[in-house]
Amino acid sequence: MNFALTDADRADILATADLLADMARDVILPHFRSRELGADNKDAAGFDPVTEADRAAEQAMRDILATRRPADAILGEEFGPQPGESGLTWVLDPIDGTRGFLCGTPTWGVLIALSTADRVLYGVIDQPFTGERFRGGMGQAEVTGPQGSYPLAARATTDLARARLMTTFPEVGTPSQRAAFDRVAARVELTRFGMDCYAYALLACGQIDLVIEAGLNAYDIQAPIAVIEAAGGIVTDWSGGPALQGGTALAAATPELHRAALVLLKG
Amino acid sequence: MNFALTDADRADILATADLLADMARDVILPHFRSRELGADNKDAAGFDPVTEADRAAEQAMRDILATRRPADAILGEEFGPQPGESGLTWVLDPIDGTRGFLCGTPTWGVLIALSTADRVLYGVIDQPFTGERFRGGMGQAEVTGPQGSYPLAARATTDLARARLMTTFPEVGTPSQRAAFDRVAARVELTRFGMDCYAYALLACGQIDLVIEAGLNAYDIQAPIAVIEAAGGIVTDWSGGPALQGGTALAAATPELHRAALVLLKG
Repeated sequence: MNFALTDADRADILATADLLADMARDVILPHFRSRELGADNKDAAGFDPVTEADRAAEQAMRDILATRRPADAILGEEFGPQPGESGLTWVLDPIDGTRGFLCGTPTWGVLIALSTADRVLYGVIDQPFTGERFRGGMGQAEVTGPQGSYPLAARATTDLARARLMTTFPEVGTPSQRAAFDRVAARVELTRFGMDCYAYALLACGQIDLVIEAGLNAYDIQAPIAVIEAAGGIVTDWSGGPALQGGTALAAATPELHRAALVLLKG
Repeated sequence: MNFALTDADRADILATADLLADMARDVILPHFRSRELGADNKDAAGFDPVTEADRAAEQAMRDILATRRPADAILGEEFGPQPGESGLTWVLDPIDGTRGFLCGTPTWGVLIALSTADRVLYGVIDQPFTGERFRGGMGQAEVTGPQGSYPLAARATTDLARARLMTTFPEVGTPSQRAAFDRVAARVELTRFGMDCYAYALLACGQIDLVIEAGLNAYDIQAPIAVIEAAGGIVTDWSGGPALQGGTALAAATPELHRAALVLLKG
């Protein structure tokens, strides 16, 4: 499908994405660090808490889209896919990093992306507690937050030995995925854990150089792809192919780092 | 030495600690997420970057103490011990979590404690980027931040299987320290990494239940001790003794959790 978005289309998409993020903030923030927070166990095999905040925020975002963008499809973490006719899909994860959320860390985020079947056009990573919003795609590449607004720009690091690497859990994924990650970690300057989707935002604003993750869903990675590409970075899966359907992800500040990490991940 | 602090003494100590934290914020924050940040390698054996911000903040805090509290001793991370005659020591770590700071994560903190030879009287954990300040001791037990001010209070969790555990690095310390940590981690609901001193603050505001760390200095742990004790929690070393001189630390929300974790740490 060929998209020829008009200026009015673009303006409406940007405004809608901000409305979605504003709404998610309003719905979620009162639940953050609340003592009454419940945590259902969505996945009996693991620990994947779903909160009232998560569901309420996605419903509120869907209500906005039903009014403003009825022709677009929706893929959301909580309520699944809703078809559309425009060829555009809003991809929503109201609280990415629910375990971080439950522990009170400001590392979770609201992820909002707008995509075609094979490409992410626009993405927002929003951190309601710190008040930061990272916007990338369709000519946008900016963070707004406590330090004001400034352009997103990935670091220029090309040497793996000088790179700062992040992932959320030390186990990363399967044992062989962990071994692949460890091959990269052994070569970098610094490895840090526990940042959830905030790690992608840190790469996009030039603080770290690599994010390597596994076990992702499409709604976990589409907004980060748009934000990091807008900052000049690169996101693929661990074989160098498109990452937008989830699975593994390798995000890098420069082509040189991406290439070096890819070789090590392939083993 | 016997301390009979007057109300005026207490008021002056509280006001001084806030002035120190305010000054540290002002000095450090302009350097946070700066692209020009240098990182000397203080410890050739490891990676322990010392920033200009770290040193400038400690100097600025020492200047305040020289004027307001000339009789008190100072123990600071950057410039070492300065003797005093009052029997009170200000224990300062301008940027605890320098690696987190370098990576742009809001997990580092300004740590300020006031101690006698064998007891921490008061402590402040300040996170300048989120604008949070956690105060504990001498009748204080409060956090102020983006969600307003509210009392510190540790969670009431008593069952290890329901506990949320944090430490900064998966390797924790020596291989045997890591094994001890892993014995506890295997029994809890949730383990998270990467939060630096912010983990202690999260325990004090009722978000997590356990923090276990090793390789600490006195200035890393004294402010957290005061803040967590004010919240109703417990901090000892891994043998159940005082933690205020550094080494290992076990912080727990309740005596039951503390006891259960201690048994596992001792092996």
